[in-house]
Amino acid sequence: MPRYVVDTSSSPRARLRPVPLDAVRLDDAFLEPRRRRNREATLASQFGHLEKTGTLDNFRRAAGTKECDFRGPVFMDSDAYKWLEAAASSLGTDADPALAAMVEELAGLIAGAQQPDGYLNTAFTRGRENERYENLRDWHEMYCAGHFMQAAVAHHRATGSDALLGVARRLADHLDATFGPGEGKRAGTCGHPEIEMALVELYRETGEARYRDLARYLVDARGQEPTAAYRRTAGGGWFDRRYLQDHVPYRDLDEVTGHAVRMLYLAAGAADLWLEQGDEGLWGAQTRQWDSFTNRRMYVSGAAGARHEGEAFGKDYELPNARAYAETCAAIASVMWNHRLLLATGEARYADLMEWTLYNAVLPGLSLDGESYFYENPLEDDGAHRRQPWFGCACCPPNVARLLAQLPGYMFSVSDEGVWAHLYAEGTATLTLPSGDTVALTTQTRYPWDGAVEITMDEVAAGAGEFSLFLRVPGWAEAGTATLAVNGEAAQAIDLVPGSYAEVRRAWAAGDRVTLSLPMPVRLLEAHPYVTDCAGRLALARGPLLYCAEDVDHPGVSVRDLVLPEDFAAEPTWRADLLGGVVALTGTARVARPEADDWQDGILYRPRRAPGAPSAAATLTAIPYYAWANREPGAMAVWLRSAAS
Amino acid sequence: MPRYVVDTSSSPRARLRPVPLDAVRLDDAFLEPRRRRNREATLASQFGHLEKTGTLDNFRRAAGTKECDFRGPVFMDSDAYKWLEAAASSLGTDADPALAAMVEELAGLIAGAQQPDGYLNTAFTRGRENERYENLRDWHEMYCAGHFMQAAVAHHRATGSDALLGVARRLADHLDATFGPGEGKRAGTCGHPEIEMALVELYRETGEARYRDLARYLVDARGQEPTAAYRRTAGGGWFDRRYLQDHVPYRDLDEVTGHAVRMLYLAAGAADLWLEQGDEGLWGAQTRQWDSFTNRRMYVSGAAGARHEGEAFGKDYELPNARAYAETCAAIASVMWNHRLLLATGEARYADLMEWTLYNAVLPGLSLDGESYFYENPLEDDGAHRRQPWFGCACCPPNVARLLAQLPGYMFSVSDEGVWAHLYAEGTATLTLPSGDTVALTTQTRYPWDGAVEITMDEVAAGAGEFSLFLRVPGWAEAGTATLAVNGEAAQAIDLVPGSYAEVRRAWAAGDRVTLSLPMPVRLLEAHPYVTDCAGRLALARGPLLYCAEDVDHPGVSVRDLVLPEDFAAEPTWRADLLGGVVALTGTARVARPEADDWQDGILYRPRRAPGAPSAAATLTAIPYYAWANREPGAMAVWLRSAAS
Repeated sequence: MPRYVVDTSSSPRARLRPVPLDAVRLDDAFLEPRRRRNREATLASQFGHLEKTGTLDNFRRAAGTKECDFRGPVFMDSDAYKWLEAAASSLGTDADPALAAMVEELAGLIAGAQQPDGYLNTAFTRGRENERYENLRDWHEMYCAGHFMQAAVAHHRATGSDALLGVARRLADHLDATFGPGEGKRAGTCGHPEIEMALVELYRETGEARYRDLARYLVDARGQEPTAAYRRTAGGGWFDRRYLQDHVPYRDLDEVTGHAVRMLYLAAGAADLWLEQGDEGLWGAQTRQWDSFTNRRMYVSGAAGARHEGEAFGKDYELPNARAYAETCAAIASVMWNHRLLLATGEARYADLMEWTLYNAVLPGLSLDGESYFYENPLEDDGAHRRQPWFGCACCPPNVARLLAQLPGYMFSVSDEGVWAHLYAEGTATLTLPSGDTVALTTQTRYPWDGAVEITMDEVAAGAGEFSLFLRVPGWAEAGTATLAVNGEAAQAIDLVPGSYAEVRRAWAAGDRVTLSLPMPVRLLEAHPYVTDCAGRLALARGPLLYCAEDVDHPGVSVRDLVLPEDFAAEPTWRADLLGGVVALTGTARVARPEADDWQDGILYRPRRAPGAPSAAATLTAIPYYAWANREPGAMAVWLRSAAS
Repeated sequence: MPRYVVDTSSSPRARLRPVPLDAVRLDDAFLEPRRRRNREATLASQFGHLEKTGTLDNFRRAAGTKECDFRGPVFMDSDAYKWLEAAASSLGTDADPALAAMVEELAGLIAGAQQPDGYLNTAFTRGRENERYENLRDWHEMYCAGHFMQAAVAHHRATGSDALLGVARRLADHLDATFGPGEGKRAGTCGHPEIEMALVELYRETGEARYRDLARYLVDARGQEPTAAYRRTAGGGWFDRRYLQDHVPYRDLDEVTGHAVRMLYLAAGAADLWLEQGDEGLWGAQTRQWDSFTNRRMYVSGAAGARHEGEAFGKDYELPNARAYAETCAAIASVMWNHRLLLATGEARYADLMEWTLYNAVLPGLSLDGESYFYENPLEDDGAHRRQPWFGCACCPPNVARLLAQLPGYMFSVSDEGVWAHLYAEGTATLTLPSGDTVALTTQTRYPWDGAVEITMDEVAAGAGEFSLFLRVPGWAEAGTATLAVNGEAAQAIDLVPGSYAEVRRAWAAGDRVTLSLPMPVRLLEAHPYVTDCAGRLALARGPLLYCAEDVDHPGVSVRDLVLPEDFAAEPTWRADLLGGVVALTGTARVARPEADDWQDGILYRPRRAPGAPSAAATLTAIPYYAWANREPGAMAVWLRSAAS
């Protein structure tokens, strides 16, 4: 069975069809080393954390094979499931007997913990059975079930084994028999959306339409009166209905609001439902939510969640940098949502955001050595925020591992029209068009450091005939600067509009070569004037990467005192020695020390004065934001003060 | 007995001695109407809320005179105590039989709820006795006890009755027998500081040194290992030790941190201890905390608390305006702390901050009709934040009532050197110098709208001899602009340094007249460059008042789009029709609509562009910040965009 990440191969509303994980082989110097570290070190180390923290023991306890107390938060099982999905996905591209043994050990533990009626949750087993589904708002039972179903589908796709898929079907059957509008069933939906995506994927894998319909019910139950997620709980407090996206029906939700991960998982689940069944109400809501997110509530990094309280979206333009929540999981949820919107539409803006979020909101969550993580990703810091090897609430680490393991599935799609290249990285791919014809191609590029991308057709099935190669011209490209050549000849008839796909249509032959050149000048970004925390500041970006400045590169100067002069210009330089190899940006900034501008008395507010004397010059060195906090602690800032703003 | 607010009449470390509440009669058009509304409407209305919410029933239940469930949060009793202190203080200046009857009804309920051993807390009476002091971190028992002691002292001072003071003594004796280093006692201190101030005041009222020593113990117990406040609890979560100011010993606490009200009550209690006993460690900590607060963690309004999560101080310069917490109670706590620091030192900077905080951080918490309250006081809003008549956690309303009732006690002090005038308002005062000689004086001024202040000696005791009148020259005054005249003649020999007291020393005679003139030009304030949320913005102030702009004064224009041009100037105008009569500030601003500057595509970030075409002009009307949100809802901003910054 094809090892898809999201199987839209039969989805009525999908413009794009998926490409299996193992159809794409990355061989680049940026993504693949991270994937290698993930499978060779991270996954085994995370399995160790699952053992140490009692996550695995919880399953042994539920199965009755070990006497111990339940440990961890009520959603502890989900850490194991996300890890399992990550590990199974990794096995889907790279065999590893040791990892396979861990996967099978965990699979056995999970199967053993399932109850005779199909229920599966170690927190409410062996002593708390009578509390099952008593608190749908807070207790995450369907959330955990969803993560398990995704893991089971990934396990099935990677191994061909029906064992876990059977467990997932029994669990889904049990949920379907318990919740919904039918006789003898009860109303309810989970406080933490996640299962919606999972049930749709389980439907795709099994063909069982009840699973899709249950997903639809769980989306539709939100925002009803009396509200389903609330029905069995004492409400109140700041975990209010908005926190759960349960204050209005999903189709009426015009904004991204509440807990960011819940919001974006819910939107991704609704996108899956759209892909399977359409429904203009679902699509309209998606569109408005995407507009709310990208135009008013998203960090420049792509990150989601402005507020610590409730791990939540704030109001429009409420985007504090130092106090950003910007949970790594929320960024991953955004990648998942945008991936589904891309599959639905083939519109490059979704791939643009998927790429930008991957590089600038997900990867900062992982240390360069692959062994520690950020839960929160501030865009400015005083040096106190450092990655941790694990968390009491350890949702983010296995989520990062999962995305890395599944990355090959995000690179390309196919459609009746041809092949779509979304993300660029050196490597090879063997893609099967919906017609059944196969195309093998090689990508050569130094992306994300250089915007020259060459795709060579290695083999084209004899009967493939004419088809298109769609190459994404990223939204970050400057209009009129991208160029395209086919077999060395400029293809001037082809539109190269930033934020769209360039379509090269022809009858392809082996050896055909398409060269896309995307110049990567340094960009100085400004924020909408309502984003008060970015006022008077600029951010640096180049290609698909957001940059930041760290104190460690500025001896004797705090990045808070760096000011970009009006004529500031930065030069990119490849620095093999720095942070595993990065393109650093350097330019001449000024140093405006508060004490030199008469703030030395420590006062916080004062009548406005004329600006002080010209300040000293200093070389600004900016590094990719994903790489911050990998050296000695010190202040970091994405947004730098500007004399011109 | 003299009706002091803080009785430093015998405090060894006090430079200033207090003036009884009833020695000062306000007769002005600003403060006294608020005080009148407080005693004629607010207090009775609040008593009704105490009845409706079950606060009074909790006492009846504890006394066994009513069968009902305990209602409200665990610290519910404190609402009644703060109201009682407010009402007793009000009776101390203005007789009111109806209010006196409510006071005595409540006094009876409280006395009836006290347990035989002196314990007093309705939450842990009748069924939860065995949980007493089980969770010092969260359950607020000493916090409630402290509020009661303050109320009992105020009741004693206002009525002369020993009834409640006796209850307070028995409660304090019970606490003293329970906590501390002595044999048979246990370690512990309250998660919510408050009782420290109360025990010191009870010591001042009764002369019982054990109460002062217990206060000292409770301060000293913080930050010990194993920490006292933590000892009986399961710890963890974000209510961490820093939240409670329990992470280091108080003397080592170099910053204001954690829950803002707790922090500032603790500091005020430590100031009381300093006043009674000295101790350089206590003083040094106060100084460093005041520096941390005023120079790095205070809003321009004087408000405290940058974070919603934990109702807490943020890091240095973390001062988001729209998302400010800025709890009304924290501002009141700051007034109380600064009042004590002023009594200790006679330094005008503490009176400056006391005044500024009163006008700009406490009064915004109260609606102009005196019937609704803000708990949080953002400095920028989209129009959604509105005052409420009461809260589930109703700490702020009776706290505001208490401060208003006690205001006369904050206006003047005396010392061996003479009379100190801290706050200016029209009215009369009869002050007794430490020598026993009496001085009666009249203040004439239109403060805070006009800076001309005339103080006339109405009577001076024959033997008073030479003494000084200290007049505060506020820190907001512009250097070199204040003038002083004695009996119409300029007193050029007297220093008039902003942020200090001008000392007029002479042998006073009835009819002597001192005229202080404080010009009130409009000030354009800028914030320290590290306060990112204020970057590129200016705030308007005039005299002791901070200003803001509201949408309602700018038809068709959002205050977010107003930009002050480089040459912006504002004119003050008395507007009797507006908001009960205010000096409004008007000037010509520009309107910079985002869509006119090419932001119309709704994008949130973009490569920097040259600024758009010159924008339309509009008249900016700014009103005092205390008066915001008293008309139709709409956006408000204290910090306005500036083209010059």
